[in-house]
Amino acid sequence: MKRYEKFADEIAELIRTGVLAAGEKVPSVRHASRTYGISASTVFQAYYLLESRGLIIARARSGYFVRELAQQPLAEPDISATAATSTEVDVSELVFSVLGSLKNPDTVPFGSAFPCPSLFPLPRLARSMAQSLRDMAPNEVIADMTEGNPNLLRQIALRYGGSGVALQREQLVITTGALEALNLCLQCVTQPGDLVAIESPAFYATLQVLERLKLKAVEIPVHPREGIDIDILSQRLDKLPIKACWFMSSLQNPLGASMNEAKKAAVYALIQRHQVPLIEDDVYAELYFGANPPKPLKSYDRNGLVMHCGSYSKCLAPGYRVGWVAGGRFAEQIRRLKLMTTISPSVPAQAAIADYLQHGGFDRHLRKLRHALETQQASMLASAARHFPPGCRVTRPTGGYFLWFELPKQVDSLQLFQQALNEGISLAPGPIFSASRGFGNFIRLNYGHPWSPQCEAAMATLGGLIRGF
Amino acid sequence: MKRYEKFADEIAELIRTGVLAAGEKVPSVRHASRTYGISASTVFQAYYLLESRGLIIARARSGYFVRELAQQPLAEPDISATAATSTEVDVSELVFSVLGSLKNPDTVPFGSAFPCPSLFPLPRLARSMAQSLRDMAPNEVIADMTEGNPNLLRQIALRYGGSGVALQREQLVITTGALEALNLCLQCVTQPGDLVAIESPAFYATLQVLERLKLKAVEIPVHPREGIDIDILSQRLDKLPIKACWFMSSLQNPLGASMNEAKKAAVYALIQRHQVPLIEDDVYAELYFGANPPKPLKSYDRNGLVMHCGSYSKCLAPGYRVGWVAGGRFAEQIRRLKLMTTISPSVPAQAAIADYLQHGGFDRHLRKLRHALETQQASMLASAARHFPPGCRVTRPTGGYFLWFELPKQVDSLQLFQQALNEGISLAPGPIFSASRGFGNFIRLNYGHPWSPQCEAAMATLGGLIRGF
Repeated sequence: MKRYEKFADEIAELIRTGVLAAGEKVPSVRHASRTYGISASTVFQAYYLLESRGLIIARARSGYFVRELAQQPLAEPDISATAATSTEVDVSELVFSVLGSLKNPDTVPFGSAFPCPSLFPLPRLARSMAQSLRDMAPNEVIADMTEGNPNLLRQIALRYGGSGVALQREQLVITTGALEALNLCLQCVTQPGDLVAIESPAFYATLQVLERLKLKAVEIPVHPREGIDIDILSQRLDKLPIKACWFMSSLQNPLGASMNEAKKAAVYALIQRHQVPLIEDDVYAELYFGANPPKPLKSYDRNGLVMHCGSYSKCLAPGYRVGWVAGGRFAEQIRRLKLMTTISPSVPAQAAIADYLQHGGFDRHLRKLRHALETQQASMLASAARHFPPGCRVTRPTGGYFLWFELPKQVDSLQLFQQALNEGISLAPGPIFSASRGFGNFIRLNYGHPWSPQCEAAMATLGGLIRGF
Repeated sequence: MKRYEKFADEIAELIRTGVLAAGEKVPSVRHASRTYGISASTVFQAYYLLESRGLIIARARSGYFVRELAQQPLAEPDISATAATSTEVDVSELVFSVLGSLKNPDTVPFGSAFPCPSLFPLPRLARSMAQSLRDMAPNEVIADMTEGNPNLLRQIALRYGGSGVALQREQLVITTGALEALNLCLQCVTQPGDLVAIESPAFYATLQVLERLKLKAVEIPVHPREGIDIDILSQRLDKLPIKACWFMSSLQNPLGASMNEAKKAAVYALIQRHQVPLIEDDVYAELYFGANPPKPLKSYDRNGLVMHCGSYSKCLAPGYRVGWVAGGRFAEQIRRLKLMTTISPSVPAQAAIADYLQHGGFDRHLRKLRHALETQQASMLASAARHFPPGCRVTRPTGGYFLWFELPKQVDSLQLFQQALNEGISLAPGPIFSASRGFGNFIRLNYGHPWSPQCEAAMATLGGLIRGF
């Protein structure tokens, strides 16, 4: 990371944590240059970057100020209500009808699960693909199916090492995206009818997988910033024969919540005491804003109880379908299940990603991607403050590309979904994130696409529709 | 196909069907040229090809003769015994220990499930990959996940059309290899505890999938040339609540048996009468010898009862992990299951294969591949006749790359597997092909690798080990 980027992240952190309040002047260039021991041009570069990310604003002859949103920013939603003890899941039909709405390329893709593909280094990946296919010995196309591409395994292990998680390469199983990993993990530790603790709201695929495997959901409320309610989790683990937990400890989908370090440690202590395996879905790990990457819950795991699932689909190579799991004590069983179902993700795709990770400039790409997402988040938040009626609330996640809106009570988000679709706008209605069909007045919007007049107009249209209820 | 290749296939057919017996003279060049209305040089080219395939042999100043094997060829095994009515499956551990034995690249790979990778046009595929990634619009990497690559869907549908199966593109679901397709199909039509009719012997992954999904096997005996015993199938369908059939109608693994057209029609009539869905595993479809491609059982399907699963892993692109299913009335359900488990096979791999199918010369490659396999089969059969003791029997499949050997009764093929492994030779022991752990004196050998002195020596070693029992 360049010096000015590092400095920009430090200032951004001060803004995020409220040390520098909205409207406040940021340190003058002269002052910052002296205090931080950096050149004036470095400070200028950093402030220019922060301005492009929508965090500060230049005022003629006065310097830079922390940006105020166009209107009073929307408040944060409350933590979700505590759900019934366990629920049979039956949400798939609804999810498929929402996913089907995304097919039309002319729709404003606020309902999408992916960021804009132009944010990914696809041409550079293509070169890595060509290079690695040139270098590949014929027998590797077969050998790498059972074992995984050795270079990719090395790159993944190295990155774990860099984030403070030491693990043996044998723990790693490369999968067809994270979703296959999550499916396999859950199959490894449950039988039909078992109870699984999940978040509420939860990623809709979690609900679909539970439904497919005939498992029952124990929904644990999630605070929009701090993650799951650990007291409720503890009570549930005490009283119910929960066979597995499936949580996103960082940048939870749809809330964007991240547990702090203390909470991660406490959750680990809980599952360790109850000896309940934890499936950690960490597909947004690389999309944090600011200077400090969140540590996975896996980093506390001393007993192989945590199955940590990651993917390149959201941060590097959508469509390549390469994910993995660090499977702890379940790794061998997961590997075998995989050999019985899909055998292996595409060997060329594995090789291309491995080559890219080694030579393509992954960290440089990630910095650009994070900054783009942070800027786009600011744009959507500002736009929502301009166009949405009073009473709307919204999360302010520290990463990822989703905002979770609580709309006034009378809004029916499934109806809103249909109305918006008629206007050429997709969105993800709250009930697809809930086993008990809660969140009827919530929506998830994707800000993963570069902000445009079309996006702004779509937000205005949504605001109008919301007022119509 | 070139004229000489077509003529060579006609002569090969005469040899295969016994019209031209071993030791008999094939038509003289002059005679053939006159009878078939082709040039003498075309006849020469054809005979040269047949010689390279081990079917005929030139004798100085006498012309070409149908080749006699070095010794009396081995006899064919009998049809397998009729199994118990249904069996719980528990074969996975054994299969994994056999698969594990293939990791060492110095082992003679008679136990492998794949042909030699050098038989595939990997450099040409790599060019197709580079080309299609250059041409791909960024949004396609995301859109093609849910829908499948449109060009690949078109190419697959075209090929069905060419083989006389008319189907709507909506019936096609592209999967991570055929194994995912087979898994999804079976999940679509069964619940844990259900009975499934399978072949005996069966492809071991079939058994693993049944075991994983807690299904019970109803084993139907298979004749080494003619395929399943239809009388037994009919009786079982009458008496047992069978929920699905899973058969390989052509080039069955491990026997290499192909049902003739009449039998395929009869099997379809049976499942249609009982309204039992049929999963047709047809991954060796393109590897037939001779002039006449076998028609899939799917070609008789007028009611969408047959789920026809294919793959490029065995005929074009191992390791790319692209297969498909023509899912009949179950297609939409299969597609949804796929979206819930792996979402999609690799989008670049789909695009590369689509481009290759359109521009790469698939049929030319297949002709070369089939001829190579046919030649290698002749070499292994001749070698077995030279080295294996009397009492051994073997199939003579009309395609694929497996031979199925029945060894003398006292041979324990699991023990033989261990002994062979100590000598650096892998093989697939009979019991991994059976839910009821039958076939204790059978082995499957892979002739998918160019014949070499090392192969010849390995056959001699195996012969010695067999004699040692």
